[in-house]
Amino acid sequence: MVFSSKLIEDAVNSFCRLPGIGKKTALRMVMHLLKEDKEQVAYFSETITKMRNGISFCPECNNISDGDLCGICKDPTRRKDLICVVENIRDVISIESTRQFNGLYHVLGGLLSPLDGIGPDQIMIGNLVQKIGAGKVSELIMALNPTIEGDTTVYYISKQIKDSVVKVTGIARGISFGSELEYTDELTLGRAITKRLPVEHYINA
Amino acid sequence: MVFSSKLIEDAVNSFCRLPGIGKKTALRMVMHLLKEDKEQVAYFSETITKMRNGISFCPECNNISDGDLCGICKDPTRRKDLICVVENIRDVISIESTRQFNGLYHVLGGLLSPLDGIGPDQIMIGNLVQKIGAGKVSELIMALNPTIEGDTTVYYISKQIKDSVVKVTGIARGISFGSELEYTDELTLGRAITKRLPVEHYINA
Repeated sequence: MVFSSKLIEDAVNSFCRLPGIGKKTALRMVMHLLKEDKEQVAYFSETITKMRNGISFCPECNNISDGDLCGICKDPTRRKDLICVVENIRDVISIESTRQFNGLYHVLGGLLSPLDGIGPDQIMIGNLVQKIGAGKVSELIMALNPTIEGDTTVYYISKQIKDSVVKVTGIARGISFGSELEYTDELTLGRAITKRLPVEHYINA
Repeated sequence: MVFSSKLIEDAVNSFCRLPGIGKKTALRMVMHLLKEDKEQVAYFSETITKMRNGISFCPECNNISDGDLCGICKDPTRRKDLICVVENIRDVISIESTRQFNGLYHVLGGLLSPLDGIGPDQIMIGNLVQKIGAGKVSELIMALNPTIEGDTTVYYISKQIKDSVVKVTGIARGISFGSELEYTDELTLGRAITKRLPVEHYINA
């Protein structure tokens, strides 16, 4: 693309560095911002710089945080003995959006993947094991992706804490709501049959 | 979506205001920026604010410009007697990217569309007619979309300047390079047959 304006070119190139944004989409965004008020565009830039400069990581759960402890760890209404283990911050946002969980999180920052060279030292397993060792946790909910890496991580963590009395659970696996059996993959459907539940579970869901 | 961080929420909402960006994509962008250096993110914001504050419109051709006259109107190597009429700035960028045109542009800022209430006073036709009247233009190339609005605009401008000696041309219409006849719409294919050209045109293309 040939731009007759250096300012436009710089802005387009900035947007292009974002994931999934090509030159044409970047140009569309720049053209959109050109039509907005200067104040609105200044606010747009400001929220982004502020976000990057202001954000830190919670020393308790590794979640992102606006201050020292994150909003979830600071919340006095949450159960401190219930910890949900997730891969990343996006998973925290997804689970929070369901409004079905009232405990704390532990963000691993990745999953074990020997093939990619990601071992226990590359992700945040150490301080989770410490927390469990301190004896204040009653249940650990594994909310990791149903993949080889997720299951490997679940298995590894379970082994590390096998001497503690903490109860280890995993989020339910099965057919998604609204999906059709006909189009469900064989593995999911097969397991859903072998791991079938009393129908009371459906009613209480 | 429930965010545990106000900073993240503000940044996601900022991205959401861009065209074609939903919450999930916005979050992916914010997460990407979180992983970048603070300096890189500051530069990202800066290019956008600078672009919005620094850009102005060229008084000659209505193109965007970093200073007073735009880069194209200022360029002494360009033919001043050749004017290409386009709908918007994106079209200028598209034609410039072909590197096949060495004249000036005139950006209309829209197309005539009586149904949408867009008449000659809503778009920049007046100063184009003035330019033609001054007698320094030898050819006017209409590079507007092949739609009712585009053709209406071409027809209106042609009528306005019918007393001048300027030559009015339009960009070629026909089958796109690389397309297949089988999938070409009937109107395009039909016109391509009735408006067929001597094959020499193919060789000199």
